[in-house]
Amino acid sequence: MNQRLTNMSEWMYQNQVDISIITSTENVFYLSGFYSDPHERLLALAVFQQEEPILICPAMEKEDAKASGWSYEIIGYSDVENPWEMVRKAIDKRVNNVSKLAVEKEHMNVERYEALSELFPKAAFISAEENLRKLRMIKDEKEISKIREACALADYAVEVGCSEIKEGKTELEILAVIEYELKKKGITKMSFDTMVLTGANGASPHGTPGLTKVKKGDFVLFDLGVVVDGYCSDITRTVAYGEINEKQKEIYDTVLKAQLAAIDASKPGASCSEVDLTARNIIREAGYGEYFPHRLGHGLGIGVHEYPSLTETNPLMLESGMVYTIEPGIYVPNTAGVRIEDDVFVTANGVEILTQFPKELQIIK
Amino acid sequence: MNQRLTNMSEWMYQNQVDISIITSTENVFYLSGFYSDPHERLLALAVFQQEEPILICPAMEKEDAKASGWSYEIIGYSDVENPWEMVRKAIDKRVNNVSKLAVEKEHMNVERYEALSELFPKAAFISAEENLRKLRMIKDEKEISKIREACALADYAVEVGCSEIKEGKTELEILAVIEYELKKKGITKMSFDTMVLTGANGASPHGTPGLTKVKKGDFVLFDLGVVVDGYCSDITRTVAYGEINEKQKEIYDTVLKAQLAAIDASKPGASCSEVDLTARNIIREAGYGEYFPHRLGHGLGIGVHEYPSLTETNPLMLESGMVYTIEPGIYVPNTAGVRIEDDVFVTANGVEILTQFPKELQIIK
Repeated sequence: MNQRLTNMSEWMYQNQVDISIITSTENVFYLSGFYSDPHERLLALAVFQQEEPILICPAMEKEDAKASGWSYEIIGYSDVENPWEMVRKAIDKRVNNVSKLAVEKEHMNVERYEALSELFPKAAFISAEENLRKLRMIKDEKEISKIREACALADYAVEVGCSEIKEGKTELEILAVIEYELKKKGITKMSFDTMVLTGANGASPHGTPGLTKVKKGDFVLFDLGVVVDGYCSDITRTVAYGEINEKQKEIYDTVLKAQLAAIDASKPGASCSEVDLTARNIIREAGYGEYFPHRLGHGLGIGVHEYPSLTETNPLMLESGMVYTIEPGIYVPNTAGVRIEDDVFVTANGVEILTQFPKELQIIK
Repeated sequence: MNQRLTNMSEWMYQNQVDISIITSTENVFYLSGFYSDPHERLLALAVFQQEEPILICPAMEKEDAKASGWSYEIIGYSDVENPWEMVRKAIDKRVNNVSKLAVEKEHMNVERYEALSELFPKAAFISAEENLRKLRMIKDEKEISKIREACALADYAVEVGCSEIKEGKTELEILAVIEYELKKKGITKMSFDTMVLTGANGASPHGTPGLTKVKKGDFVLFDLGVVVDGYCSDITRTVAYGEINEKQKEIYDTVLKAQLAAIDASKPGASCSEVDLTARNIIREAGYGEYFPHRLGHGLGIGVHEYPSLTETNPLMLESGMVYTIEPGIYVPNTAGVRIEDDVFVTANGVEILTQFPKELQIIK
């Protein structure tokens, strides 16, 4: 078995879990290497302490699963078969007296939970998520290299966006060109809905791009990410269109100073809260504390929001192999918003910055 | 209360349900008019038999909910508050002795189900989904007008796609231009991932667009939809790039004949299976039965897959106000795929066809 499945089995042994039934696209991919999202149809991975795992998927995906490198049993079911009965039979060959199951309680729906409860009426159900989040937090070299590639494409996307800033263009038009250029390179999936926000729209941390036109004297904020082989990047850059005023410059400089300080503070042994507060205190001291309403950053990998979570209060220590975002922002309502976000990878002594688009204030003429 | 909430309460009365807790974006939108997808945060609508309903959302969305027209109680919670406790208090003011709750069992996750079960330890939980599917199946005039608008934009998208078919262009490039032109019109959401498939790729009913280039003598298949004010369209057209051979023409003509016959068969009182079989039998008689592996169509509205489901075996009678797709296809592996799909609306005597892009074989020079 691969190291990830071995780690999972080890956790199950320690927690007396007889079977783990993993059903989210992300965690099935993490453990099996098979990426599939069959929507309302069942995708599942059954993991045991000792026995070989079983993959359950729609019959039409069976060949794809083999092609992805999965070499253990696969149960493919048609639309007229009950996959749970097939799962039960396969499990019966491996273990008896199932007393504890682990499932993803934040992912599994009640209907499936009831089906499983009927199959194993005497079993207790615990959550498999916390353990999987911890396993996924430390990336291996292959994972880093995919994230690195996704970051390079995110840099390119911001570059395209900047070159499209012209009088009269709308946020959505600029966004459309970015995605067009990525599709030309074969990218089919973004990490999340691309954001291009200008002027006062940028002052909402979760704004929606629309038909607002860019105009001179405003910031333009890009927040986007690209998925490469199942791994995400996530970058934010804020650039000036034409000359901006002193107040805007002050906001930009404050965010940049906070962002650079948080990068410097990032190293194995530093806590998440320490790194968050390094940036937050700079913003507070500059008088913008109330305008930085979100955490400093989040882990990144197969999911665009993973562990670690860089909040003011998270005592978790950084470790070599973690990948996360550093993204302080200042949002002054109805005025302007600036956010600068890099993806970083914790090394033995500090961090390597994976996103490379320049951070000195870019003024688009 | 609006008619939809009244219908829901009526169903609850008939089934002795004390409270319905609705948590999916689609059904909350259907019942409340408020469209929100706060991801991992809780969005919920509590509906009662007699008392006024309660909307539960993140505090930062409270103003949006009011602006959407919601005039009943709203519970807005911050990230440090437990929304379930707040829900419990609000419910206690309305009803006591809760013995039966309805939830969306295919949507609600186990974590939330356990939280609710703790709040109401003596209550039985039943599924609210079947009833909501039936309510949503019959559209009112406002809904039809939004779907009509979404269909007009889908027609436009296919038109753009056809004008982009040129030697050397890839599926993804054509797809990117389609979405670019829609974004220019202010469209921010597609009903599902847009498909542009050419040649043998079109022979997979769920193919993924990639870097394959269009070439003369091949079909190009477009399958896409646009969301307008929360309502979806869904169109498929297959066009020829340059001259195609007799076999391809035969496949196209067979699909078109089946599609037109199914439209003719659609009227109040006809069953879903009758309509499906009208198309299916034409394809079978032409010798392509095994190459039409999916149902004829599906309902459409807030969701891109709703009731009714047009399968060979569904006895459900069509009724005035239903909206669904009619999309027969023939997929000959490694050769060619043709699918033709319209969205139709059942009227008093038959159907009105909402998608208008021509269906006679279009040959792109």
